[in-house]
This record gives sequence, C-alpha cells and structure tokens, in this order.
Amino acid sequence: MKNHIYIFPLSTIFQIAVSFSPSIIPQPDLKQMGSAANGAAVDMDTSTSNGSASVDKGVDFANYFCTYAFLYHQKEMLSDRVRMDAYYNSVFKNKHHFIGKTVLDVGTGSGILAIWSAQAGAKKVYAVEATKMADHARELVKANNLHGIVEVIEGSIEDITLPEKVDVIISEWMGYFLLRESMFDSVICARDRWLKPTGVMYPSHARMWLAPIRSGLSDHKMSDYEGCMDDWHGFVNDTKSYYGVDMSVLTKPFSEEQKKYYLQNSLWNSLHPNQVVGTPTILKEIDCLKVTVEEILKVQAVVSSTIVKEDTRLCGFGGWFDVHFKGREEDPAECEVELTTAPSVDDVTHWGQQVFLLHPPVRVNEKDDIQISFTMSRSEENHRLMKVDLAYQIKLSSDVKSKAKMHRSSSATTFRTSDEYFLNLLPPGKAAKPPPDDDLPVYNPISPNGSKEHYNSSRENTIHLIPLVLLLCGFILWFFSYPIDVLKDNHITM
Amino acid sequence: MKNHIYIFPLSTIFQIAVSFSPSIIPQPDLKQMGSAANGAAVDMDTSTSNGSASVDKGVDFANYFCTYAFLYHQKEMLSDRVRMDAYYNSVFKNKHHFIGKTVLDVGTGSGILAIWSAQAGAKKVYAVEATKMADHARELVKANNLHGIVEVIEGSIEDITLPEKVDVIISEWMGYFLLRESMFDSVICARDRWLKPTGVMYPSHARMWLAPIRSGLSDHKMSDYEGCMDDWHGFVNDTKSYYGVDMSVLTKPFSEEQKKYYLQNSLWNSLHPNQVVGTPTILKEIDCLKVTVEEILKVQAVVSSTIVKEDTRLCGFGGWFDVHFKGREEDPAECEVELTTAPSVDDVTHWGQQVFLLHPPVRVNEKDDIQISFTMSRSEENHRLMKVDLAYQIKLSSDVKSKAKMHRSSSATTFRTSDEYFLNLLPPGKAAKPPPDDDLPVYNPISPNGSKEHYNSSRENTIHLIPLVLLLCGFILWFFSYPIDVLKDNHITM
Repeated sequence: MKNHIYIFPLSTIFQIAVSFSPSIIPQPDLKQMGSAANGAAVDMDTSTSNGSASVDKGVDFANYFCTYAFLYHQKEMLSDRVRMDAYYNSVFKNKHHFIGKTVLDVGTGSGILAIWSAQAGAKKVYAVEATKMADHARELVKANNLHGIVEVIEGSIEDITLPEKVDVIISEWMGYFLLRESMFDSVICARDRWLKPTGVMYPSHARMWLAPIRSGLSDHKMSDYEGCMDDWHGFVNDTKSYYGVDMSVLTKPFSEEQKKYYLQNSLWNSLHPNQVVGTPTILKEIDCLKVTVEEILKVQAVVSSTIVKEDTRLCGFGGWFDVHFKGREEDPAECEVELTTAPSVDDVTHWGQQVFLLHPPVRVNEKDDIQISFTMSRSEENHRLMKVDLAYQIKLSSDVKSKAKMHRSSSATTFRTSDEYFLNLLPPGKAAKPPPDDDLPVYNPISPNGSKEHYNSSRENTIHLIPLVLLLCGFILWFFSYPIDVLKDNHITM
Repeated sequence: MKNHIYIFPLSTIFQIAVSFSPSIIPQPDLKQMGSAANGAAVDMDTSTSNGSASVDKGVDFANYFCTYAFLYHQKEMLSDRVRMDAYYNSVFKNKHHFIGKTVLDVGTGSGILAIWSAQAGAKKVYAVEATKMADHARELVKANNLHGIVEVIEGSIEDITLPEKVDVIISEWMGYFLLRESMFDSVICARDRWLKPTGVMYPSHARMWLAPIRSGLSDHKMSDYEGCMDDWHGFVNDTKSYYGVDMSVLTKPFSEEQKKYYLQNSLWNSLHPNQVVGTPTILKEIDCLKVTVEEILKVQAVVSSTIVKEDTRLCGFGGWFDVHFKGREEDPAECEVELTTAPSVDDVTHWGQQVFLLHPPVRVNEKDDIQISFTMSRSEENHRLMKVDLAYQIKLSSDVKSKAKMHRSSSATTFRTSDEYFLNLLPPGKAAKPPPDDDLPVYNPISPNGSKEHYNSSRENTIHLIPLVLLLCGFILWFFSYPIDVLKDNHITM
C-alpha cells in the first residue's frame, strides 16, 4: 500500500503572551507589559549569555519585569486553581523535602511558594523577587507570621548573594508554551549557584507538547486578513484620487506586514480536548536538575502524530507543557505531582495553549500520519521572544476516501519553509483572545465560500427555536382563548 | 444672590495612547508599543533635557519609536481624513510658502508631507524619520517620481545634520491631547537648529482645550471597579480556606492599584458634541515659532466653564486640541487652515478626545460655573508619559432647583487634591475603547442603585417586544386556526 505524501509549510508567528489571562475588569495598563519588536534597533548595553545578542537591563525591566509588579497580575496567577493545587500538593504532600530545610524561591512574586515552604516546615526560606512586588511579599509574610523564616530579598537572582546553599529551589518559572519569558535561565543560574549537590528542584521535570488541532480561528484570521487587504486597496485608491499620492508601491510590504504580524502570529487559546484531532507528541523533555541554558536556547524536534478523528480539518497545531514534581532520584517525592496545561474541560489554566494556525486548513482523516519538524529559538531582538520554524507532511492512511485529497497529493511539492517565525511573547490583552464561539469544540465543516456559520451557532440555535416557541404560545393562547360555548356547541353539533 | 460652592478633587490618571485607533483587523502586536511604568526601576544611561529625569535611548526606541515602524499604523494616520485634509489644504492653498523653498519634514513616517511639499513646488525636502519606516518612505518618494527633490534621512532629528537651513518645517507631531509623546520637543530642536530666521512652521500654532462632559463611562468604570473588588474579597477568602494563606493584608494595596491604574486612568474617547455640557475652555496656547521646551514641560492653567445644559450630570472633563496653519506674522498664510480634534459628529479624528472621569458624577445645572485648576507635567519614569493634577469647584447658579445640591453644598469641604495623576501614553488597544453604548450622546439619568440601564437598552427594548410579538402571533394563529364551521355556528347562534 502506497502512502500519499503532502508537504506544506506551516507559517506561524507565535503570539505568546505574559502568563496571565485578562483581569476581571479591563486593565488599560496591561499594555505597559508589551515588549518591543519590529523596527526596534535597541541599543544594547549589558551583555548576558542568553542566546540573544545581548540584553539591555533597562529595556528588559521596562518590558518584562514591570509586568510582575502589579497585584492584579499576581492575583490572576494565584487564582489559577490548577497551578495552585499542583504547587500546594507538591509541597504539602512532600513535607520531608521541606522540614528543617533551607529553600530558595526564585521570582517569589506575592511570596506564596515561600510561605507554603515555611508552613511545610522549612527552617529558612529565601524569597527572591526582582520587582517592587517584593514589598507586598514582605507584608504578606509578616501578616502570616512567617517573617522569622521567610526572608524576602529584592533583586534579580543573578545579582543577589545568599549566605548559604539551599536544599530546595522552588519556582514557578513557566511561561506560555513553557519557555516564553526565558525565566528558566534564572532558575538554572540559581541552581548552579545556590543548590546543594543533594538539593531538590521544584518542579523537577518539564515537557513540551504539540498536537494537530481543528479550530475556526484559521478561517477567522484569513477572513480578517482579506478584509484588511480589501481595505488597503480602497485606501490606496482614495489616497491617489484625493491626495495625489500613489501608495501602491507599499501594497506588497503592507501585505507582508499583515501576514507576518497577524496571520503568522500564534495565539493564546483555551482549546477544548475535542479540538485535538491527532495524538499529542512530546517536543522536549527537561530534567530541571541537569539541564543547561544552552540546552534550552533552541528546541528542535522531528515528531509524528496520527490523526484520530474521521474526516476532519487540520487547522494548525496546539502547543502546551506539563511539569512534574518528582524530587531527585536519590531523594524522590513521596507523592509525585503533575501540573499539566493540556486542553481540558475542567482543569483550564491561565497558560492555555499556544495555537499555530494553517492558512488554509487541510482535510485529514483518521490514521493519517503527520510528521512535524519543529524548531524554536530566541529572537535576536529580544531574548524573551522566540522564533518558531515548523514544517509538516501528511502521509495518508490506506483508507483514502476523499477525492480532494487525491487531487492535492498530486499537486503537492516537497519543500520546507526556511522562514523564521516569531514566538511573540507579548501579553494577549483582550484582542488576542478569540470570541468564545471561535473555539467550538464541535467540528465545523468548510463550506464552499469559507463561511463562518459556526461562530454564531449557539445564537442561531436560539433563533431557530423562536418559530417553535411562537407556535407553542400561539397554540396555548388559541386553546385558552377558545370560547367555551363554541366548544360546547361543537360538541353538541358533532 | 449667594453662590453655593462645592469643591471636589478630580482623580484621573490619563490613559493617552499612541496616536492611532485600532486597525481594521485585530493587531496582537499593538501591545508591542506599550511602555513601562509601574515598578520599573529602569537604568537610565543617556541623559537629555526633557523634563524627566533622563532618557534611556534603548528603552525609548523599544517603547515608542518602534510603534511607527508599522505600515498599518501609518495607514491609520493616513486614513484620518480630517488630519489629511488639513495638512493637504495647508500646503496646497499656501504654495507660496513652498515654491522654490527648502523644507524639513520632522518624523516623516510614510513621507506624505514631504511628498506634498515637493508636489507644491519645494526645490528640496529633507524628510527625517527615526524608524525603519524611512525605507518605505524612500520607496514611496521614488514611486511618485520625487527622488530628485525629497531626500529621506533615517535618524533622529537630534542626531542628524542637514547641509543647509530650511525655509519651512512641516511636521505632524501632535499626540493625544496634543503633547503626549513629547514629540514636539524634537520639532523645537529642529526649528532651533535648522529653520532660517525668516522660516515658517507648519503648523504654526496649537491650543489645548478642556470642557465638562457627561458620559456613561463613569458609572461603567465604577461598576467594574466594584465588581473587581468583590472578586478580590472572594479570592482572599478562597486563598485562606483552600491554601491556608491570609491575603487580606493586600486588600488595601490591591484597591489602591485598581484605583490608580483603572479608575483614575483617563481614556481615549470619541465624544459626541452633545456630551459636552459646558463651555470649552483653552488650557494652553502655543506659538510654534517661539515656544521653548521649558514652556511645554508643564501645562498649568486655572480656567472656568459654564454649564450649558439643564439639569445634567458632570461626569468628567474632555480634553482635545487644535492646530493652525497661519504662517508667520511677516509671511502669513494666504489661506489659514485649522485642524481641530474637538468632539464632532462628522469630523472625527483618530486623536479623539481624552476623558478624565469623575467618580461619582455630580449633578449640575445650566449656568453653574466650574472653576478648574489644571496641571500637566511629565512623568519621572518616562518623559513621554504625563502626570495630570486636576481640581475643580462648582459655583451654583442662582437657579437652585435641586435639593440634593443644597445638601451637598452644606457638606462639602474645601480642599484640593495634591495627588499626581498619570497621563499614561500607552496605546488604547481594544480594551481601552468603551463599548459603543457607553458613549450615548443622550443623557442617562442616575438611578438610585447606580443602574446601567442605558448600556443594554437596545437589547432590552427587543426583549420587551417579545411578549407583544407572541401575543400578536398567537392571535393570528388563533384567528386562522379558528374552525370555519365553528365561526359559522357562532354566527348562527348569535
């Protein structure tokens, strides 16, 4: 049996944002957390080894750290029950790692992990925080009567000095799709400087996952893009006729800008498990005790996934991570804990998933095999930004049902895009979140005109009920308004 | 006749954003234009005189200039017909200022003003642009066959050198509420370095305006804030009961953060003229030929406004600007042109207005007099951010109708807030834009429970129609379903 092979380039710029979902109330200042990217020829002053050219500490603080100085942001993270439960259980179900021990909390934020460590029995906890949130952490520690144990230190982990080495390093360092923010660098630095040779990492292991998905967002974005280009053409015409300037030379650059920064931009999304149409696959496994910064500068993997749904659409790929609390081999956890950010109905996290969309989506079928070549590295412009290069090919299963597939297979050429796509680490804000209906877990067939009927399906269902309700009400009204004597008459005349 | 006097502090943090409205399609990368503020202890390297402590050029480029490197942003500005018409007319109706002259365009962006200047007859135009947009400007100049006249220079105006002094400086330097972005500093610098003593400024004059307004946004924001605090209290309880940590010590800082960064944040808004409830008043007049940077570091004014609507709400103040193209006294414009960003039905600009909201709004009446003390200065953290200090007092007109007013007057104390409020220059994004109904030009009475009936009024009206529609349909169904013979029978038996 011969496999038909398609190869398509996957064009996606990640939009991986600061690890919080929008606050309960609109927060205009969320934008203060943005980072620079396009066109920013930033002066670089302070060099550190992070895979990017160099890091200006001022820029880094302005664009990154300041995010964590807001309480509402801390609250968002502290309200993530999956995250909180995992860390809470990891500490309190493994008290033997904490009782009488020294602990370092890297990036303590509000101080919650440091407080739990102390409550679990640590004799000393160093809680290091780079932002002014350190003041709030100090207050919180005091209010919880742990100021004898927890010492909050304001400063970056790379700069501060501890009086001793520690038994445990605990940290919630994970960004969207695990490595966004590159905060793990700081944890590695802390480990190499301050962890005893017998020390334990909390969490101890981490994994990155990728899976084929279906999603209405792909059509949505393409339609937005087309509308935007239509608008551009109108703009070019208007500018020529009203203002005598021919802008058409900018049409190509504009279209490229839109593709690069809109179409090829990955999205934060909270996927429903039904949207995962193929077997999830591991891109990277990290042993937090052993990994080096060099080993996470670039994540490279060739993996495969099998489609598990019948006659569906491959609209892109979803990426997520999990971390585990297993202790170390010689000193394992009594109770291993897992924190997963996989698509879930009940255990949704603020990390959600990162979605890399295909334009256009591709029809696939059960047992089709997808080979994915994945590379993620850091942006030259900002070491907290990532570039992602994805290519994939589809091997059809023997059960070739679709004529369209046959046609495609014969016209496909084998190439692999060499473009680099940005894993953009900026905060999602409201705009980056799709309207809820975009995420319908149920399958949405592609109609010939690329319709978006699925976006408003719930509303449409309601509308469809109206005639029925009207009929029912009409009937009830008719029934009760029926004159009794007429009924009687009818009865009599029968 | 005695005037009753109230004095209320006005607590508003400006949220003045980069001068564009959201693009046609969602632009996740808009967030890349954010700047740092809270908690950002930015290293300052390069000092320049701008009223703020000092400016790190890297941070400044990352947070500010990069914005202008996007074509979609240029397109937003180029699609602002009010802006375009004003500059176009100012140039082409005053060709005598351009024919055979040398022109400098400060911050040329796409190059449009430089191109117009050349088309109007300039013999040489220097088009200076700090970002990579310079490349696109160069292409555009070439495509319009003006590369013999327009020379695009990539660099900041403070750093570059021209081979000669110029006759005209043209620039579109105005930010939200005129001075946001502090770009005018660069124009002043250009003028002092490169304008001939007989030279002309385009525009030549500028004014800042303020007026009392009514708006549903005030209730909206307060309700959001209250919801947010309710949510916080739930969060504190949950964290205590589920995770054994008492967060209540952070309640006050959280509330203060929400007030400072949400409630006391000014908003971009496109006001309807009907929302202006008092006479607009001028805060600042600028002669672009003479003004110094020192004179715009701080805008300070005590002004008064008279309420012009009967029994209405003072919900806050709206700020806007206008600029004029008058040439210079010895060399005036043949045709004076005005570009105003005042509230308007037809001539809406991308600048809109800045809205400073009151919490809660205050009842006012026709002929009430409002005295406003206004101070705007630059933030220490970012010279492109502003701090605004506003205080006002209401002198009641003789026609005291409202009992509530009498009560208030007797309980009011005379004080003036000394807090500083931020004029936050960040881009509005989608979140900062209110839902359309928030901006109802019609007056929304305050109901006792501070209801928001006006937000969903259209939806509610529809819902209220449903019973009527049902009755009607029921009646129709009933009528047509009525058995003819029964009717007949009825008729007979009557």
